[in-house]
Amino acid sequence: MLKENERIDDIELKGLKIIQNKDGFCFGIDAVLIANFCEIKKNATVVDLGTGTGIIPLILWGKNNIRKIYGIEVQKEVAEMAQRSMRLNNLEEQIEILNIDLKDTDKYIKRDLVDVVVSNPPYMSSGDGIVNPSDKKAISRHEILCNLEDIIVSAKKILKDNGKFFMIHRPHRLADIVELLRKHRLEPKTMKFVYPKMGKSPNMVLIKASKFGNPELKIKPPLYVYDQNGNYTKEIDEIYGRLD
Amino acid sequence: MLKENERIDDIELKGLKIIQNKDGFCFGIDAVLIANFCEIKKNATVVDLGTGTGIIPLILWGKNNIRKIYGIEVQKEVAEMAQRSMRLNNLEEQIEILNIDLKDTDKYIKRDLVDVVVSNPPYMSSGDGIVNPSDKKAISRHEILCNLEDIIVSAKKILKDNGKFFMIHRPHRLADIVELLRKHRLEPKTMKFVYPKMGKSPNMVLIKASKFGNPELKIKPPLYVYDQNGNYTKEIDEIYGRLD
Repeated sequence: MLKENERIDDIELKGLKIIQNKDGFCFGIDAVLIANFCEIKKNATVVDLGTGTGIIPLILWGKNNIRKIYGIEVQKEVAEMAQRSMRLNNLEEQIEILNIDLKDTDKYIKRDLVDVVVSNPPYMSSGDGIVNPSDKKAISRHEILCNLEDIIVSAKKILKDNGKFFMIHRPHRLADIVELLRKHRLEPKTMKFVYPKMGKSPNMVLIKASKFGNPELKIKPPLYVYDQNGNYTKEIDEIYGRLD
Repeated sequence: MLKENERIDDIELKGLKIIQNKDGFCFGIDAVLIANFCEIKKNATVVDLGTGTGIIPLILWGKNNIRKIYGIEVQKEVAEMAQRSMRLNNLEEQIEILNIDLKDTDKYIKRDLVDVVVSNPPYMSSGDGIVNPSDKKAISRHEILCNLEDIIVSAKKILKDNGKFFMIHRPHRLADIVELLRKHRLEPKTMKFVYPKMGKSPNMVLIKASKFGNPELKIKPPLYVYDQNGNYTKEIDEIYGRLD
């Protein structure tokens, strides 16, 4: 089940486990926050664009009553590791990992039928300080194999009318995000900024958009990660706590 | 100097005074916040689109070293009252109130030369619950005589390259704001959300955009207006305090 440098981690949610590579991209707070931010109705069909190790599908599965989740991952080794994680949890039927380019998602998943698309995409532009573009971590973090517009276009294609798109990204890209969502008729409906602590600028933003939705944006109260003593805030504890 | 129902208020900044109509639109925290948010270099030329009573030009004049401010106000009676306020302060040369439609601003102020444009525009769409569209307060609050795009287009026309546009607006219009700024090449550079208090959604957003600027948005730490006891926060006290 495990390859070299891999380990099994308990995600502390209904006994679900995930295989991660110690030298690769291990899941962080971003995945937990975006999974927690998603609103998913019963029996929904969900697609995670750029699923990596499959952490978001696993958290979503543990927290919701979902019919089927597809995780799209272009990197063969990473997708294969995610597939082993799903087998480890006996969820390979319920959470299907597709090793495809997310730009081709609509060739594998029928258009206009998906209830929810979620993504924790690469945050950085392709030009920003890349050492090795074939590096798996670099592909997870930089827009090497896909960019923001590719993700938004893919989401738009497969979502049903009024279907929801949830994404976490960096606030400095917010103008790009809003412009591209609007361009592709995914109307921004909710935003929540994540601040490392009081008095700091936000370093993450959670966004909900609705396909063909009406214009009316709601900005949620701020989410602070650490309190002034350097401990997780109550809200973060609750988000992680719900995983128990 | 005063007409019926008018009074003179001290703005508590270098002895500056303003005439306001007790039944009309009196300045609120919005004007103070946007004036405080503006960054203005020495000897700048500044234009306030939809200046109303002229409160923003007066605060800007008191806080900065400005060459000339133009206040644009379409309502004749309101513009005439603002002109009397400037005379009251012996500033009618330095702060010129133009009683024109802001869509015609570039017929009166040369294009591509202004350093800073500021606006505290009507927040509400023209359709939102208007009782009497000829009412002066309604015109200040609703997009009856101009809309968001008119303001952005006017700002774009008169600003010099790299000139700055500062605006306060409602967060629920943020997607419109970003899309229209981008459309007219005023790149959003800074945003600051104003929250009535901790745990609430923001009810105002301060925005800085730069004509032909590079894409890179900075979200500032949140500004809270009231603390948990219902008193102004330290930051708000400081903003008002600087007016002393």
